[in-house]
Amino acid sequence: MNEQQIIKAVEKAVHSANSVTLAQAKKLIARVEEEAARIGVNAVVAVANSGAHPIAVECMDDSFIASYDVAVQKTFTCVSLKMSTIELKKLAQPEQPLYGIQFTNQGKIVIFGGGVPLKRGDKVIGALGVSGGSEEQDTYLADFGLKVFEEEIL
Amino acid sequence: MNEQQIIKAVEKAVHSANSVTLAQAKKLIARVEEEAARIGVNAVVAVANSGAHPIAVECMDDSFIASYDVAVQKTFTCVSLKMSTIELKKLAQPEQPLYGIQFTNQGKIVIFGGGVPLKRGDKVIGALGVSGGSEEQDTYLADFGLKVFEEEIL
Amino acid sequence: MNEQQIIKAVEKAVHSANSVTLAQAKKLIARVEEEAARIGVNAVVAVANSGAHPIAVECMDDSFIASYDVAVQKTFTCVSLKMSTIELKKLAQPEQPLYGIQFTNQGKIVIFGGGVPLKRGDKVIGALGVSGGSEEQDTYLADFGLKVFEEEIL
Amino acid sequence: MNEQQIIKAVEKAVHSANSVTLAQAKKLIARVEEEAARIGVNAVVAVANSGAHPIAVECMDDSFIASYDVAVQKTFTCVSLKMSTIELKKLAQPEQPLYGIQFTNQGKIVIFGGGVPLKRGDKVIGALGVSGGSEEQDTYLADFGLKVFEEEIL
Repeated sequence: MNEQQIIKAVEKAVHSANSVTLAQAKKLIARVEEEAARIGVNAVVAVANSGAHPIAVECMDDSFIASYDVAVQKTFTCVSLKMSTIELKKLAQPEQPLYGIQFTNQGKIVIFGGGVPLKRGDKVIGALGVSGGSEEQDTYLADFGLKVFEEEIL
Repeated sequence: MNEQQIIKAVEKAVHSANSVTLAQAKKLIARVEEEAARIGVNAVVAVANSGAHPIAVECMDDSFIASYDVAVQKTFTCVSLKMSTIELKKLAQPEQPLYGIQFTNQGKIVIFGGGVPLKRGDKVIGALGVSGGSEEQDTYLADFGLKVFEEEIL
Repeated sequence: MNEQQIIKAVEKAVHSANSVTLAQAKKLIARVEEEAARIGVNAVVAVANSGAHPIAVECMDDSFIASYDVAVQKTFTCVSLKMSTIELKKLAQPEQPLYGIQFTNQGKIVIFGGGVPLKRGDKVIGALGVSGGSEEQDTYLADFGLKVFEEEIL
Repeated sequence: MNEQQIIKAVEKAVHSANSVTLAQAKKLIARVEEEAARIGVNAVVAVANSGAHPIAVECMDDSFIASYDVAVQKTFTCVSLKMSTIELKKLAQPEQPLYGIQFTNQGKIVIFGGGVPLKRGDKVIGALGVSGGSEEQDTYLADFGLKVFEEEIL
C-alpha cells in the first residue's frame, strides 16, 4: 500500500468506525423484524447514527401509529444519553436522580424499554429503537438486535 | 377454501388495496436509491401510508441531515393534500391561491418538488418523498419512483 | 469627571449589577470545566442572564448530546423560579406542592440537581446550569461554581 | 512509533478530523467577537459540531435576545444542508427551487446571511453562526470567521 491508499483506507475505516451505516442499519432492522414476526409483534424498528439522527425506520404492517415517534425517540435517547432506555427507566422514576429528564429535550427522551445504544468499543456509534409490543417484548427485541449487531454486523 | 380462509384472504387483499405495505415501500425505496446513486445523489427516501404516516425511511450515507424531515414531510404533504409537491409549489407562491398553506399543519407542508402521491385508481394509498439533490433531481427521482411503483410494484 | 463620563460609568455599573456579563460567564464556565475535568465528567456548562436567556454555553468534548438542552433549561429554571433545581426537585415530586411544574413552560423546567441561581444580594442576576455527570456530580459542580462566582467573580 | 502509539495518533486525528472540538470553537468565537467589537456589533456567536449540535455559544453584552436562536439555528442550517445561509437565501426566495425550505425542520432553517459550514477538505465538520448586526455585518463576520478557521485553527 502506498500513502494515498493508506489514507483512503483509513478514511473509509474511520467513517464506518464512527457511525452506523445505512447498509448496517438495514441488515439490523431486517433481523429484528424477523424476530418480531416470530414472537407475534408488529414492530416499528429505527436506527440512528452517532449524531442521534435517524438513518432508517421501518413500520411493520399494522403496527401502532404512535410507535413511529416512540421508536425514533428511543434512538435519540440512547445516543444522546449513552445508555439504554431500560437503564434510564430506573433513574427517571419519581424520587430517583433523573426524575424529570423525560420532560427535557422537547419530549424526545423515552424512559421505558426498547432502546439500546450501539457501540464500537466504548464509543456510541448509533442506536436501535423498537416499539410495538409490550415493554418486555420491545426490550427483548432491542437486546436481540444488540446481540445481532455485535456478533454479525459490526 | 373454507369460510375462515376466504375472510382472511379478502382482508389481506383489502388491506393492501387500501395502503402501501412495508414490503412495497422497501422495494420502491431500493429502486429509488439505485437511481439516486446512478445520478450521484445521496438521497433520503421516505414512503408514507394512506394515513399520511411514514412507514419506511432510509438515509443514504452522507445525505443531508435536514433531508430526513424534508423527505418525510413531503410524504405527509402528498397524502394529506392528494397532490405532488411540485403541483403544490405553484399554488403556494405569493399571490397564488394557496399561499400560506406552508404555515399550516405545524410546518409539515413542503412546497417544492420531490414528493408524489401513490394511487390505486383514484385513491391515494400512500406517498413517496425524496430529498437530497437539487429540486430538479428530487423531482426526477420522485417521478422515477412513481413510474416504478405503477409498473412494477402495485 | 464630567457629567457625561459619570453617566457612562454609572450605566456600566448598573448593567453589571443587574445581570451576569459575558466576561463573568466565561470565567465561571472555565472554572467549572476545570473542576469537571478533575473529577472525570464531560460536562455541558451554561450561564443565563437575569432575563433567563442563555449568554454562554460550552459542551466539553464527548459530553452527552442531551445535556445541552438540560444545562440550558436548568439556567432557565433557576432564574425563572429563583431557586436551585435541587430545591425544586423536592417540591415537584408526586404529591408535593409543585408537582406538575415540570409540565409547564413548554418543557423548560428541570427538576433535578445541577442548576443554581446567581445572586447579588437578594436579586437573581443569572444562573449556572451543569449537565453531564450523575445528579450528585452535577449538583456538586453547580455548587462549586456558585462558590467561585460569589468569592472570585462577583 | 509502535503499534500502540500509531493507534492513539490515529484515534486523535480521527476525532478532530470528524468534528470541531470545543477548544477550536472557543478560539474561533473569541476571534469573531474581537472583530465584531471592532466594527461595533454586539453579536451572538455559535459553533456546532458535525452532528449539527451546538458545542459553544456566546452572547456579547447587550446583544439581541432573538439572536441566540438565530445564531444557533444558522449553525444547524449550515451543517444539515452543507451550505452557507447566504447561498441558501437565493434558493429559498419565492419562485426559487427551495422556496419553502424555511418552513421545514421545525423552523430551524435560517435563510439569511451569517452562517457558514466549517470543512476539512470536502467534509462538513461543523458550522459557525453569527447574529446581531445587519445581514451584511453578520455575513461579513461569518466569512471572517471562516477565514480564521481555515488559516489559523484547522
